[in-house]
Amino acid sequence: MKNRIITISREFGSGGRTIGKEVAAKLGIPCYDYELIEKIAEESNFSKEYIAERGEYTAHSGWLGSAFADRDFNGHSYQDDIWSVQRKIILELAEKGPCVIVGRCADYILRDKADCLTVFIHSDLQKRAERIVKQYGERDIAPEKRLRDKDKRRAAYYQFYTDMKWGSVQNYHVALDSGVLGIDQCVETLAALYNAK
Amino acid sequence: MKNRIITISREFGSGGRTIGKEVAAKLGIPCYDYELIEKIAEESNFSKEYIAERGEYTAHSGWLGSAFADRDFNGHSYQDDIWSVQRKIILELAEKGPCVIVGRCADYILRDKADCLTVFIHSDLQKRAERIVKQYGERDIAPEKRLRDKDKRRAAYYQFYTDMKWGSVQNYHVALDSGVLGIDQCVETLAALYNAK
Repeated sequence: MKNRIITISREFGSGGRTIGKEVAAKLGIPCYDYELIEKIAEESNFSKEYIAERGEYTAHSGWLGSAFADRDFNGHSYQDDIWSVQRKIILELAEKGPCVIVGRCADYILRDKADCLTVFIHSDLQKRAERIVKQYGERDIAPEKRLRDKDKRRAAYYQFYTDMKWGSVQNYHVALDSGVLGIDQCVETLAALYNAK
Repeated sequence: MKNRIITISREFGSGGRTIGKEVAAKLGIPCYDYELIEKIAEESNFSKEYIAERGEYTAHSGWLGSAFADRDFNGHSYQDDIWSVQRKIILELAEKGPCVIVGRCADYILRDKADCLTVFIHSDLQKRAERIVKQYGERDIAPEKRLRDKDKRRAAYYQFYTDMKWGSVQNYHVALDSGVLGIDQCVETLAALYNAK
């Protein structure tokens, strides 16, 4: 029997990371999010900041930007290096035991390798804007603009490496609006679905 | 306090109608699906068969087909007549009390009029094909082709009358893959979310 794993994809500012942590705590299994970045840093030569940024986001929004940004004449990019290391680490973690993995295309990487409950967390722009201002503070750029840019670059990254559409409802077993349902109810729902199978 | 209502949008063959019936039974509230067609038939001059077909599907797939099909020189169509009657009936039902409403753009019609839990049920093509063959029998046209046509015309109808994208994850509070989770688990999940609020 393959290990049962929850993969969480999320819109920036939707609280997907918090939901991942809380559902893992509730189920008594580990949650890999920042820990994943640390592991990738250990096994590569890149800084944690660079990995956090380029292990989920393209340099520019749009497919062309993601495909050609930062490539040398051989078509090689640091982003590809990070992708290889994080793919290997995610596969190793999934072998080790049940867990929650936040982001980083884990749903795609594990699609035939683990018994996954694939999750998408979203929320409307205004609620996400309030959340990121509360969590990360004000910036020069308006929160709505930051969110749109982050979502676009995350979607471009996902599409480039998986050839699938990020946030397309058919790709996920369950999609929840955390802004309407609330963080606690999302956690309850995912824990119940995880335990039911 | 507005009445609490579950609206269920669903891919053809995903079991969304069955889920609606069962969750309503579990919650002890009415479910309007075929009953809606009967009410529309009572208040209009159209047959139940015509309403079932043209109250959720365009005549052809694609926006152009839906916009111009069957219109007279004044731009009027029977589909618009059915839309007006079913909109009125859905608003009346929502006023009456808590309920489940399957399909017919109820999520859009009630967006500011009721306290809705908006749901989307989907499943992969193969599982849906098996389901419709079991439920409706074999036809001359392959089940996969029937499904794609039905989904396209339903999406075109939704987009034409609501100007929103049918099946777009952001439009729903909860989206569930009934093929992976199973009908019973979908029912449990929706009942729990309904009761939680």
